[in-house]
Amino acid sequence: MLLRDRDRVVFTGDSVTDAGRARPVGQGLWDGVGNGFVRQVDNFLNVLYPEQKFYLMNTGVSGNTTRDLLARWQTDVLNLKPDILFVCIGFNDVWRQFDTPCVFDLHVPIEEYRENLIRMIGETKDKVRQMVFLTPYYMEPNKEDAMRKMMDSYGAVVKEVCKEYDLPCVDLQPAFDDYLQYRHSASLMWDRVHPGPIGSLLIARELLKFMGVDRPLF
Amino acid sequence: MLLRDRDRVVFTGDSVTDAGRARPVGQGLWDGVGNGFVRQVDNFLNVLYPEQKFYLMNTGVSGNTTRDLLARWQTDVLNLKPDILFVCIGFNDVWRQFDTPCVFDLHVPIEEYRENLIRMIGETKDKVRQMVFLTPYYMEPNKEDAMRKMMDSYGAVVKEVCKEYDLPCVDLQPAFDDYLQYRHSASLMWDRVHPGPIGSLLIARELLKFMGVDRPLF
Amino acid sequence: MLLRDRDRVVFTGDSVTDAGRARPVGQGLWDGVGNGFVRQVDNFLNVLYPEQKFYLMNTGVSGNTTRDLLARWQTDVLNLKPDILFVCIGFNDVWRQFDTPCVFDLHVPIEEYRENLIRMIGETKDKVRQMVFLTPYYMEPNKEDAMRKMMDSYGAVVKEVCKEYDLPCVDLQPAFDDYLQYRHSASLMWDRVHPGPIGSLLIARELLKFMGVDRPLF
Amino acid sequence: MLLRDRDRVVFTGDSVTDAGRARPVGQGLWDGVGNGFVRQVDNFLNVLYPEQKFYLMNTGVSGNTTRDLLARWQTDVLNLKPDILFVCIGFNDVWRQFDTPCVFDLHVPIEEYRENLIRMIGETKDKVRQMVFLTPYYMEPNKEDAMRKMMDSYGAVVKEVCKEYDLPCVDLQPAFDDYLQYRHSASLMWDRVHPGPIGSLLIARELLKFMGVDRPLF
Amino acid sequence: MLLRDRDRVVFTGDSVTDAGRARPVGQGLWDGVGNGFVRQVDNFLNVLYPEQKFYLMNTGVSGNTTRDLLARWQTDVLNLKPDILFVCIGFNDVWRQFDTPCVFDLHVPIEEYRENLIRMIGETKDKVRQMVFLTPYYMEPNKEDAMRKMMDSYGAVVKEVCKEYDLPCVDLQPAFDDYLQYRHSASLMWDRVHPGPIGSLLIARELLKFMGVDRPLF
Amino acid sequence: MLLRDRDRVVFTGDSVTDAGRARPVGQGLWDGVGNGFVRQVDNFLNVLYPEQKFYLMNTGVSGNTTRDLLARWQTDVLNLKPDILFVCIGFNDVWRQFDTPCVFDLHVPIEEYRENLIRMIGETKDKVRQMVFLTPYYMEPNKEDAMRKMMDSYGAVVKEVCKEYDLPCVDLQPAFDDYLQYRHSASLMWDRVHPGPIGSLLIARELLKFMGVDRPLF
Amino acid sequence: MLLRDRDRVVFTGDSVTDAGRARPVGQGLWDGVGNGFVRQVDNFLNVLYPEQKFYLMNTGVSGNTTRDLLARWQTDVLNLKPDILFVCIGFNDVWRQFDTPCVFDLHVPIEEYRENLIRMIGETKDKVRQMVFLTPYYMEPNKEDAMRKMMDSYGAVVKEVCKEYDLPCVDLQPAFDDYLQYRHSASLMWDRVHPGPIGSLLIARELLKFMGVDRPLF
Amino acid sequence: MLLRDRDRVVFTGDSVTDAGRARPVGQGLWDGVGNGFVRQVDNFLNVLYPEQKFYLMNTGVSGNTTRDLLARWQTDVLNLKPDILFVCIGFNDVWRQFDTPCVFDLHVPIEEYRENLIRMIGETKDKVRQMVFLTPYYMEPNKEDAMRKMMDSYGAVVKEVCKEYDLPCVDLQPAFDDYLQYRHSASLMWDRVHPGPIGSLLIARELLKFMGVDRPLF
Repeated sequence: MLLRDRDRVVFTGDSVTDAGRARPVGQGLWDGVGNGFVRQVDNFLNVLYPEQKFYLMNTGVSGNTTRDLLARWQTDVLNLKPDILFVCIGFNDVWRQFDTPCVFDLHVPIEEYRENLIRMIGETKDKVRQMVFLTPYYMEPNKEDAMRKMMDSYGAVVKEVCKEYDLPCVDLQPAFDDYLQYRHSASLMWDRVHPGPIGSLLIARELLKFMGVDRPLF
Repeated sequence: MLLRDRDRVVFTGDSVTDAGRARPVGQGLWDGVGNGFVRQVDNFLNVLYPEQKFYLMNTGVSGNTTRDLLARWQTDVLNLKPDILFVCIGFNDVWRQFDTPCVFDLHVPIEEYRENLIRMIGETKDKVRQMVFLTPYYMEPNKEDAMRKMMDSYGAVVKEVCKEYDLPCVDLQPAFDDYLQYRHSASLMWDRVHPGPIGSLLIARELLKFMGVDRPLF
Repeated sequence: MLLRDRDRVVFTGDSVTDAGRARPVGQGLWDGVGNGFVRQVDNFLNVLYPEQKFYLMNTGVSGNTTRDLLARWQTDVLNLKPDILFVCIGFNDVWRQFDTPCVFDLHVPIEEYRENLIRMIGETKDKVRQMVFLTPYYMEPNKEDAMRKMMDSYGAVVKEVCKEYDLPCVDLQPAFDDYLQYRHSASLMWDRVHPGPIGSLLIARELLKFMGVDRPLF
Repeated sequence: MLLRDRDRVVFTGDSVTDAGRARPVGQGLWDGVGNGFVRQVDNFLNVLYPEQKFYLMNTGVSGNTTRDLLARWQTDVLNLKPDILFVCIGFNDVWRQFDTPCVFDLHVPIEEYRENLIRMIGETKDKVRQMVFLTPYYMEPNKEDAMRKMMDSYGAVVKEVCKEYDLPCVDLQPAFDDYLQYRHSASLMWDRVHPGPIGSLLIARELLKFMGVDRPLF
Repeated sequence: MLLRDRDRVVFTGDSVTDAGRARPVGQGLWDGVGNGFVRQVDNFLNVLYPEQKFYLMNTGVSGNTTRDLLARWQTDVLNLKPDILFVCIGFNDVWRQFDTPCVFDLHVPIEEYRENLIRMIGETKDKVRQMVFLTPYYMEPNKEDAMRKMMDSYGAVVKEVCKEYDLPCVDLQPAFDDYLQYRHSASLMWDRVHPGPIGSLLIARELLKFMGVDRPLF
Repeated sequence: MLLRDRDRVVFTGDSVTDAGRARPVGQGLWDGVGNGFVRQVDNFLNVLYPEQKFYLMNTGVSGNTTRDLLARWQTDVLNLKPDILFVCIGFNDVWRQFDTPCVFDLHVPIEEYRENLIRMIGETKDKVRQMVFLTPYYMEPNKEDAMRKMMDSYGAVVKEVCKEYDLPCVDLQPAFDDYLQYRHSASLMWDRVHPGPIGSLLIARELLKFMGVDRPLF
Repeated sequence: MLLRDRDRVVFTGDSVTDAGRARPVGQGLWDGVGNGFVRQVDNFLNVLYPEQKFYLMNTGVSGNTTRDLLARWQTDVLNLKPDILFVCIGFNDVWRQFDTPCVFDLHVPIEEYRENLIRMIGETKDKVRQMVFLTPYYMEPNKEDAMRKMMDSYGAVVKEVCKEYDLPCVDLQPAFDDYLQYRHSASLMWDRVHPGPIGSLLIARELLKFMGVDRPLF
Repeated sequence: MLLRDRDRVVFTGDSVTDAGRARPVGQGLWDGVGNGFVRQVDNFLNVLYPEQKFYLMNTGVSGNTTRDLLARWQTDVLNLKPDILFVCIGFNDVWRQFDTPCVFDLHVPIEEYRENLIRMIGETKDKVRQMVFLTPYYMEPNKEDAMRKMMDSYGAVVKEVCKEYDLPCVDLQPAFDDYLQYRHSASLMWDRVHPGPIGSLLIARELLKFMGVDRPLF
């Protein structure tokens, strides 16, 4: 099991992570970590390991690209002194190129995306026990879709960079691809990005598997 | 040109038509007809034919299926005594089968869809100068997508029924398919159904062509 | 596994069940069933059995006692034609005797409670494939607490009545008692009644075990 | 056609331009540019030239006079590095002299108006490929009306200054005068200044003609 | 002086009269009669004749035409048992023909306007000590303006009908015409119909003169 | 007549003056000066002298004592460069001693009140054409009432100081005393301080008389 | 002590009683009875007699006169089956004659007031163990004030009627007169009617004395 | 009696003290001190000692621990120059360890708690006539409850420190323990911490006894 009693565990990223989390960080009961996948992970850990205490913090900010996240890295990541850090970022780097194709200033090209990830690693790796990346995904089963294609290529960058810097990486796309064999993406979320409660459970499941959870829920 | 001076022109359907239109019908200046494609048609007609007066009314209701629309047909269509009637319905008949696949009570199967259309025609055809159907569309370029496929089949029903009852039908899907060759559907609307202002302009353009507008905008 | 493909599954009760569910019943995507234990059950079923469709409905109403629930039984239970029915009621029958001890009109004594349950069964048992009761609980580990004591006695009535009428009963109190060995009830909810997301997960886990779920989550 | 692929196109001015545009600039999908004439221009360009990308930005601020606009020129115009710049300002310079005739501090006399325009040109002309002025207008067909008269004289200043500095100028008053031959100004907007959707279409039509759009809408 | 101690004085009409008056009628202190000309008349009477009590009631309803007012005549006029009745109606009968020229259902042609007035008189004249009409006006000094022209003709109908039925009539248009020689209508109200506080004072002044007020304010 | 064409006329004080005036000063049409006595003065001047322009400004701030007003004197009085200045202050200096008798920090004793007035005069007298004080009043006819007594003594200070510095002073108490011979103070305002519309008219009447208005209203 | 364990105790009247009480009656914890004197009485009884249960209900309605209260007597008094009934009514019967002296329809003359009280007694006396009246009061120490005078005369009616029908009556005016020897009425409430928390304590103290409370608070 | 005429009496702490008090301190009538126990103390003192004036101030801030209170000690305590100071703090120091057991950063261990109290005393003792501590309490009658146990130990620290520094201490826990022999804590407040109006009365009673109030309420 990756987590140890009294670990400080930070999740950061964009709206997929944020999900209405409290500001400032740490405020509130279980709503402090928002109502997305971080809350679900928190719920599972509380229920499965009630005798241990994992201090989960969520500093996702809706709409963030890697460019935005990097700008608040010191405040919203390093200052929180995480033992374990999960980073899930890149959706908006890609999405803005498709939903606002003319607003060039909001687009983060793949080269800059790679550099931003590398800078995050450089500033952090030695200061935490474990840094983990989650790939961005697109809840679109058609791999020929232009945005799906680009999301796949950005996800590939995450995997390459993680390999290069010897960091673990949780690939979220396959979990969605499996689910979309049975249900249409419209049942998860109309925009095919925000996971909703079902998609958040799919993510949480992947994270708990990654953590090596050794107790069954039922 | 289909419309004549002082014609009463009713548009009815679901949220694609509704688009925030006033209640009761006819309230307000230009906002009475909502801010969707009906408003755009209204704007164009005012600007191009300022010397004529076309009384456009919008009775779309968000979330409606053919089943819902039929239940209010007398009040929201016949009582308004239209000269020309545009009906754009079917999105939700299909959509609910994909976004809430377990909520069976909201699904309208294709046979019932066809019957509902035929009942609308039966109650109306002789009372208006022209009744026109618009096909539902899905802003999804992938024709293998399950919901696109079903939407195409429902659209086919509209075209068949119109043919059978000798009514004109405006097929909206091709206009979107053309546009989506250049832009991703995310730039129109994340849910691929509500047209947004650009999609509404695509619809309005089709309607004005159908009406036989004989003056250029620029 | 208790549920079968295309089953209609109704959950009814008070605020523990309600949890912000949509009105009228069935509205909305995943938020139609509220954000309490019914949503969590729904999420798990969707994720574990995506190839099947279970139509979950939630007609809990905050503040209800058995007296209130009985008054809307036809509309909110029988009319929905459930295959499976879960009833979780009794918290307020007890609670009002402690939080508003002088407001006698709101108190439901244990004899009336028993009769109300029996009337629910009488009107329903033959019309559904399976009717299931959940006991009310109190997130108070001290069994000498006066309200815990009374809640236990009401819970005992549920169990007795179920036995008498040969219905299954899910006893929720033990799940909370286990958890409260490790954590203080203040971490679930300050009022020790509303379960919050963690308590809802404890309930959902009991329900899934009861249903005989045969696939692991992780 | 004036615009080239990937051009940055800034529109600035007062409430006629603003029309509820997003703050900060560039936020949002199509609502980022407000719901006035800039949105309509944007819609037309997207529909007519989907294979090209024009980055339209709107920095109008309701209530602004030339005095106010000049004070934010660096931030809201130059910093955005426009290739093409449209300036539509002067309504409030005139209007305040008529609707609040005693609030002298808000009046911008015609000499100062001219100087303000010239200062805008001086700070900008060499930094953009094309700077364009739109004249203010008054949706009042009676040329003897005192405010119409003054608006005409301010509009004349725009035209003179543009001629002097060799800039193109789009005269908006004639488009409204034409329309008001058929319809009363009350049908556009009760205040005879804010164009509403129909007036915005009249403006958008003039701008598209000015740009040399070479494709018909229908 | 027209009013006598303890007279019941009813003002009815549209938004010019309504001006935010309380519902139901008679609620509130001085805000019961709205904040328009009725309030100003009330203020003047209180200050000038504090030893007498005039019971002023306001039943104006925004947006009303004569057609709407007639429909509520029993409830909102006769039931209040006025000694004196002031009726100010007709703005919307005319206005809708200009601001929503295509919404035919809202237009009240001049023949119907005349009939409506006559029906009001017929149902009322014998039941009140004095019934008084106020002409509708348009705060537009240009007598060639199409809406001003029509408003003048409707005002002429009021005067004719009053003459025919031997009722006094307060012509409000001249008071505005005088004022507009000095100030632009934009300083009263942008829509040239709602009088605002200054226009309300102009109306109140005419009414007080009509009543034969015999004490100076200063 | 005290005022001359194009005069800048500032009114300052507390909530009696403020009455919902716009912030920043000068914003809005007739609502810029609030809805109290300043608006009524403004209305009368507009109606009586439409050919002249008096620039009325209102910088009253609800709750202010002389201590508070002095602290913002530069910003809210001198910076506005008044030709004529009306100051109406002192209500709260007295009132707080009666409604919150234990909150000593809010009480302004009569000696400090006198000094504050003298400091206002010293900073201003030479910079304006005319500075005028209005006495505070209490809408309480019983001169033995403790708060009425103290208000009278504070009013006496205003009159003494004005005499000493050769400034005009408008005594408002008599106007209210006259009115209260006929009506109860409850009909003006329950708190016997805020004048409401009728009391504001009483004040406005005194001010217009003071100004030497030479035209009758009716 | 007047109250017995498990007594149903109803308080009814106007806003002095209402004080924001819950609707429908009996809802809520301690806020069900509002935040006025009824809540204070409830607090004292709970603290002093925690071993007994008194069911206090509040059906005051803001703005009520005896005329209004009589109209809802069956629903809001008799249906609640009180053992003990407290009625505090008459403020508005008097107040409307002073704050809205011209709105005759809202005035309840003293003869009607007496009759209304007698009718309340007639419908109730035999159905409750004890009916008690509280006199209306006016927080105005000047007995020559016109409204105080009239309130005194209405209070005298209450006392006379109670004597005649052999009912106890709690005279509230003396408690306020005592307090106002030391503090100005402005410190209780600006309108001299609503008691505020301090005045509510004065009332509650009188009621507890009347009830014969036999335990000291401190 | 501890308090003397014109004493400045400051209450500070967390939400138990705050209870919706005004900001900035001293604003408002009786609502300036919130609606909790400070208001009740204020009410009693006003009613019992109307001839004296005690200036009560409330600077409680919801959610504060000793750590937070210490950080604003200069501003919110010393600057107010209290004669008498009441400090009621520690609830949140304990509570966060139970309701958010994993959010370590919010926990204040007992050693730090002691030090914080000592620092408060050191900065204050010589500057006030009397500094008084109130112990935190928990409305939980079960002394074996983990949070009750810890609260008792923190309360013991308050008592020890007060003894050491020769300060009086009001122990609030016994008053609640007495009450909870008769009523369940749910009738005070569901969270067992915020006292609600009944619990506030229990606290106020202790404080008035402590002050040596020498007049009975009834």
